[in-house]
Amino acid sequence: MNKKIIATLATAVFLLSACSDPTGGNTSNNPVDTKGETDKTTTSNQLSNDYYKTIVTDGGYQISKTRGSTLGLNSNFNLKAFETGLMSLSQVHFDTGNYYFQEGQYIDSTTANNWLKRVSEKNPDGLNPEDNGKKESNERNPYYLNSVLEQDYMIKKDDKFTLGGISIGLSMNAIDYYQKVEFGDEYKTKISRDELLKQGKEMANKIVQRLRKTEGVGKIPIVVGIFEQSPKDSLAGGSFIVEAVSENGSTKVGNWRALNQKKVVFPLVDETSNELSNFENFKSEVENFFPNLSGVTAEASYTDDQLVKMKVSIITQFYGESEIIGFTQYVADKAATFLPPNIPIEITIESINGTESFMSRKIGETKFYTHIFN
Amino acid sequence: MNKKIIATLATAVFLLSACSDPTGGNTSNNPVDTKGETDKTTTSNQLSNDYYKTIVTDGGYQISKTRGSTLGLNSNFNLKAFETGLMSLSQVHFDTGNYYFQEGQYIDSTTANNWLKRVSEKNPDGLNPEDNGKKESNERNPYYLNSVLEQDYMIKKDDKFTLGGISIGLSMNAIDYYQKVEFGDEYKTKISRDELLKQGKEMANKIVQRLRKTEGVGKIPIVVGIFEQSPKDSLAGGSFIVEAVSENGSTKVGNWRALNQKKVVFPLVDETSNELSNFENFKSEVENFFPNLSGVTAEASYTDDQLVKMKVSIITQFYGESEIIGFTQYVADKAATFLPPNIPIEITIESINGTESFMSRKIGETKFYTHIFN
Repeated sequence: MNKKIIATLATAVFLLSACSDPTGGNTSNNPVDTKGETDKTTTSNQLSNDYYKTIVTDGGYQISKTRGSTLGLNSNFNLKAFETGLMSLSQVHFDTGNYYFQEGQYIDSTTANNWLKRVSEKNPDGLNPEDNGKKESNERNPYYLNSVLEQDYMIKKDDKFTLGGISIGLSMNAIDYYQKVEFGDEYKTKISRDELLKQGKEMANKIVQRLRKTEGVGKIPIVVGIFEQSPKDSLAGGSFIVEAVSENGSTKVGNWRALNQKKVVFPLVDETSNELSNFENFKSEVENFFPNLSGVTAEASYTDDQLVKMKVSIITQFYGESEIIGFTQYVADKAATFLPPNIPIEITIESINGTESFMSRKIGETKFYTHIFN
Repeated sequence: MNKKIIATLATAVFLLSACSDPTGGNTSNNPVDTKGETDKTTTSNQLSNDYYKTIVTDGGYQISKTRGSTLGLNSNFNLKAFETGLMSLSQVHFDTGNYYFQEGQYIDSTTANNWLKRVSEKNPDGLNPEDNGKKESNERNPYYLNSVLEQDYMIKKDDKFTLGGISIGLSMNAIDYYQKVEFGDEYKTKISRDELLKQGKEMANKIVQRLRKTEGVGKIPIVVGIFEQSPKDSLAGGSFIVEAVSENGSTKVGNWRALNQKKVVFPLVDETSNELSNFENFKSEVENFFPNLSGVTAEASYTDDQLVKMKVSIITQFYGESEIIGFTQYVADKAATFLPPNIPIEITIESINGTESFMSRKIGETKFYTHIFN
């Protein structure tokens, strides 16, 4: 971060688009103010090319209209993978140099809730299938769609911020957890990848069609990604499996592109790979070093069957600060020796008191950055 | 961290010194093996000049003979300040380039426990004063000494590691918390700085005298630091207030040197300073930005009345990952603008899920390193 003065964009005035023409067209040159003038600036600090600068509205953070909707995902791992995954996907279409991030402002909370419910006479907008009255896991209609996430990507023109693109993430259940009676035992309906994709793609087209009718969306590109949640008990988050774009104001998405991404948790039984055996060696060295048994796991991310990222988590008990320092030094040594080169790696060491230290190596770097919290 | 191969010091054999001559002399050239041969190597990774390389014994971490003794301090803040503070103090006498860290191996657990107890007929080695039978806070004899920490500093000669110095920390109570009856209410005896120092200095001489009689210690330099604990409810750790060295096998420490270090927690009421008002501005900007009220505090470390270090802690509630990213970017902006330049600063952002992100700027650096855990 440079200690440069924050860009004085405070005078940049952005007016919310409110064009009543549902067929849209980019309304940025003719904004209609529905809410009074709003000062929009951005954070001057962009953490890396992986992150967008964020829009600052009236000196504050503009929260999502469906704030908290991702809290309903299976786990915090899924929440983080879903939100950051949609940002990564968006970078292919909206580059971080020219686009600014804004939390979703076009799908409101009531709308999103209705979409997530089952379709019924009372709720014609529901995207999940109707209740067929069955309770058995292989007979009932499961909830396919778990959460909808909107992200807005803004562009700056003549000191004004205007909508440049929208990304929509659909978080789908590979397992639908349900109760037969309220507060009863939890049952599971498994959903095949094929069925999940078929349902997700249909929903994507419905959502795009509805968004095109939403005030202010107009003809801007809409990116849609379908995310497959990992199970509740998984230590890895889920992944986006396909994506598509709706361009030129189309009410459908274009061709779907398979993403071939997956996350697996090391150690893994019944599998062999170079990465895995190297990780096993790392784990065994680390566990032998320290007298209290450490939990050593990793989330390994693959794209097109290539390992692209690794997040290592070590949990152990410490009896003092010098133990944390010595252990961290040792882990840094062994990480350099055993973990794969040329991919980003993040290692956190935790105790009952929280994160004690962490190491991080970005892509293209040969050194680990190490920090001990003391 | 370089990805260099770990120094193959595995053949370096270190034999525990066990010279029976209590007047000592550096026994490193004539080691007597009491426990069988022990392979000692070191971590090849030294995190920064602030940290010593750690001795690795038989591929494992050699724990302290009084392991866990610092867990009895008033708080985790005190524990970390006590252990890392003694390491910092040691660096003045044992430089990190030539000395290696080893957990204390000369004061065993039984010995330390006896020292920490009250002196009595049954426990003649007790360093805390005898029980005078009084229960009132201003009449009873308080426990002055809370914990004793030993750190060993090793030097390498001809591929062998030998003891080069010992540092002893005495953690003293500025407040002695006690119960009048077992499991009863907690009462406090306050101890003045003068009394604390007087008692600590006397104890230091007794400890040095005893250490000189301990097998293997010989004439090596012994650094002693007196640490004043912060209260249980303080968000800052305590500080070392004086230090002295015992050299050439002396059974006393030499002249005491005042350290004039203190830690204060920002925001502070009833005080004014440039640093404080800058911090207040930072805090106010950060709190206004985010819709959920954030707890923003800092531990400011002073040496000779100069601010030398700042640790900022921000605790807030997040409803999604993009909020964490946007908030972190904003905090990084404001930290660069409002927080003091030219000192090391560490900022952690935490939620109920633990550490979400952190920023760190070392001394001499102008950029913050930023990391988001996702």
